[in-house]
Amino acid sequence: MPAQSPSFDEAFTEKLGELLAWRRDVRRFRTDALPDALLAKLIALMELSPSVGHSQPWRWLRVDDPDQRLAVQASFSRCNAEVLADYEGERAALYARLKLEGLREAPVQFAVFCDHGTLQGHGLGRRTMPEMLDYSVVAAITQFWLAARAHGVGVGWVSILDPEEVRRIAGAPPDWKLIGYLCVGFPVEEHDVPELVREGWEKGRS
Amino acid sequence: MPAQSPSFDEAFTEKLGELLAWRRDVRRFRTDALPDALLAKLIALMELSPSVGHSQPWRWLRVDDPDQRLAVQASFSRCNAEVLADYEGERAALYARLKLEGLREAPVQFAVFCDHGTLQGHGLGRRTMPEMLDYSVVAAITQFWLAARAHGVGVGWVSILDPEEVRRIAGAPPDWKLIGYLCVGFPVEEHDVPELVREGWEKGRS
Repeated sequence: MPAQSPSFDEAFTEKLGELLAWRRDVRRFRTDALPDALLAKLIALMELSPSVGHSQPWRWLRVDDPDQRLAVQASFSRCNAEVLADYEGERAALYARLKLEGLREAPVQFAVFCDHGTLQGHGLGRRTMPEMLDYSVVAAITQFWLAARAHGVGVGWVSILDPEEVRRIAGAPPDWKLIGYLCVGFPVEEHDVPELVREGWEKGRS
Repeated sequence: MPAQSPSFDEAFTEKLGELLAWRRDVRRFRTDALPDALLAKLIALMELSPSVGHSQPWRWLRVDDPDQRLAVQASFSRCNAEVLADYEGERAALYARLKLEGLREAPVQFAVFCDHGTLQGHGLGRRTMPEMLDYSVVAAITQFWLAARAHGVGVGWVSILDPEEVRRIAGAPPDWKLIGYLCVGFPVEEHDVPELVREGWEKGRS
């Protein structure tokens, strides 16, 4: 780390703009493993994330065990079937065609929690907005996502899951709240337009 | 935007690491204005953020009016006094010494909301984890924060506020939930260690 504060030139900020434009929520992964050193680097970059009161409440549990992964896939299948039943007509047909996760292919998977029992931070900044603790974990996931993409690694955030069920599957304590379930690996393809826009689910505002 | 997917070389990823290491929550701002074009660019980069179902639920309201700003400062003062009363002894003395916001100095201020009434995204990804909508706004703030720092602009996230009071002050509709109140401007100083760590409030884990 430089002792002098760094300066960021136009070449860097332009490239940063490309990173943000090409990030994507990835659902199509190659199955080859990620190098351990690369994964450790991404986790270290994630640890630099902002957190309320410097509480650093993020807890990342790797989900590697085949039985655990099957249980997560089953939770997704069940939740997704319920969602599908709520849509009607063309919207239901479109929903059924979407690929929304890479749970079977992604070589690395994390259940990411917020530790509601942590004493770190001494409660600073959380009295009137206690949800700041959860938000700190969201910021960490966002930062991990961007760092991963810069290193050629795709991330997909799966939310069509029963959070309490995933907590039990991952073996996390009761006071850890699931914030996100992440699929991580090298992407099969790269895009600057979100899949939901390409598939006609949503045009978006920008 | 390039038609070909970009590649990010080691020089870029190293610089990105410096950006993450030197981001900081800024509370000491210069009072000079930010160029409009720069602010517009940062907002455009924020708009590239991930959002559940491509819902893009973030709503950024600028708080410029002096009366609005005084009302926000008053909310902070009241909430902060309540927090201080909860700490005891040395911890209270340390808390009282901390500078936790730049509400008086920051030339640009945003109240950032999540639009719970939006139909965009058609509810995708939110059935079992409805909080994903709020998380999408947190991701957008995180992305804005990093883009700002890369362009030499500091951001401070103030959470010691009554969120419902700030919603009314900013004139937002009842179904917009306050996610964060942001102070934005050129920073007076730059650091690679968080202020709360420098001041001895929290050591942190990393």
